[in-house]
Amino acid sequence: MHLFYTPDIASETYSLNEEESNHCNKVLRLKVGDAVHLIDGRGGLYVANITNISKKKVELKVVSKREGFGKRNHHLHIAIAPTKNIDRLEWFLEKATEIGIDEITPIICERSERKVVKEERLEKVATSGVKQSLTAYHPKINAAISFKDFIAKDIADDKLIAHCISENDRSTITELIQPQGRYLILIGPEGDFTPKEIDLALQSGFKPVTLGNTRLRTETAGLAACFEVNYLNRK
Amino acid sequence: MHLFYTPDIASETYSLNEEESNHCNKVLRLKVGDAVHLIDGRGGLYVANITNISKKKVELKVVSKREGFGKRNHHLHIAIAPTKNIDRLEWFLEKATEIGIDEITPIICERSERKVVKEERLEKVATSGVKQSLTAYHPKINAAISFKDFIAKDIADDKLIAHCISENDRSTITELIQPQGRYLILIGPEGDFTPKEIDLALQSGFKPVTLGNTRLRTETAGLAACFEVNYLNRK
Repeated sequence: MHLFYTPDIASETYSLNEEESNHCNKVLRLKVGDAVHLIDGRGGLYVANITNISKKKVELKVVSKREGFGKRNHHLHIAIAPTKNIDRLEWFLEKATEIGIDEITPIICERSERKVVKEERLEKVATSGVKQSLTAYHPKINAAISFKDFIAKDIADDKLIAHCISENDRSTITELIQPQGRYLILIGPEGDFTPKEIDLALQSGFKPVTLGNTRLRTETAGLAACFEVNYLNRK
Repeated sequence: MHLFYTPDIASETYSLNEEESNHCNKVLRLKVGDAVHLIDGRGGLYVANITNISKKKVELKVVSKREGFGKRNHHLHIAIAPTKNIDRLEWFLEKATEIGIDEITPIICERSERKVVKEERLEKVATSGVKQSLTAYHPKINAAISFKDFIAKDIADDKLIAHCISENDRSTITELIQPQGRYLILIGPEGDFTPKEIDLALQSGFKPVTLGNTRLRTETAGLAACFEVNYLNRK
């Protein structure tokens, strides 16, 4: 069944915006009476019927609703340095959304070549991942923040930092976390975190982790962490 | 140390091709006497010194060689339907190479919208992943083949097919494979394999697997399978 993302749904009836209406009408060629899926990004999965189609508006009536659809048993927050080529961060976001992530914070590090990120663009990418994976929870995209300000925050999650220095003294995520927990994982920029940033993180209670034997790009490292956490929490 | 991919290295001395020479000379601004890494894609990792730099040619002399560098304890072959948007297949290939894969075969399925793949382009993408991850093994890219012809082949590996039909009767990769094995995993096109293709695969000894709870795009499914196999074989 075709799926629409309707974060502002508030009643039994809903009208798709002009863009979605056009997609529904002209591209998907759906007709009055056809049923579609709606997700609100907060755990709600709806089945709705098309009640009216006009030039710029498709009207729907909700026939059933499920709460807490696809609810995960853990909370994963990845704070990742935006890649120089923004496409790489966007694909991380799309894939992480498909695999399962709750919160993403772009962190600007000393070695970050990119200092600016458009949150609204990241929102769109995450939404496309949400639709694709039919997960009813939309990940929270936080505003970009400097590494220093971010780790100074008081965050109660299991805190991990994936850096590339000194292979030997790091454990794997598997060795460090318990299932059904809340996790925060830091992923550095091209060129890695600076030793100063790593010290700062360790002082703030972050534990160093390795993501495996090969050297991974920033976005690949982020996805590897996302995969491992979801794997360890797989029901 | 800077790394060059030199699949045709055969002696103590080596000359970079014009493109690599230009990159080494003009972009990296390396000088005579500087040391670089070379990998041959067959497990050889070399340290070489620059002995001469001319306009279009950088000459190197090997000072040390390691065999079997980064050798994996298993063999992973993923046969995947090319995505309609080829970028998505290329992305899978780059990431799978970073994480660890031995062999990739594009399979043309009944529902494949894309029937043609440029192998030489895929070679380039894999090579960039090889350089990034400093893995001395270049994955083997096979020519595209029809699903039917592919599964008719006599392949001794553990054979798995990741399809999306009937959630209930499938095990996970973790439940089905042993570490240090040889694995072949089939990943379908947008729209999934046809029931006929799935039956054909099951008759040919493929076991159905699920990759988790969410609905994944073709390239994400391929990467999830790659992650899981490497995770289970992690030393």
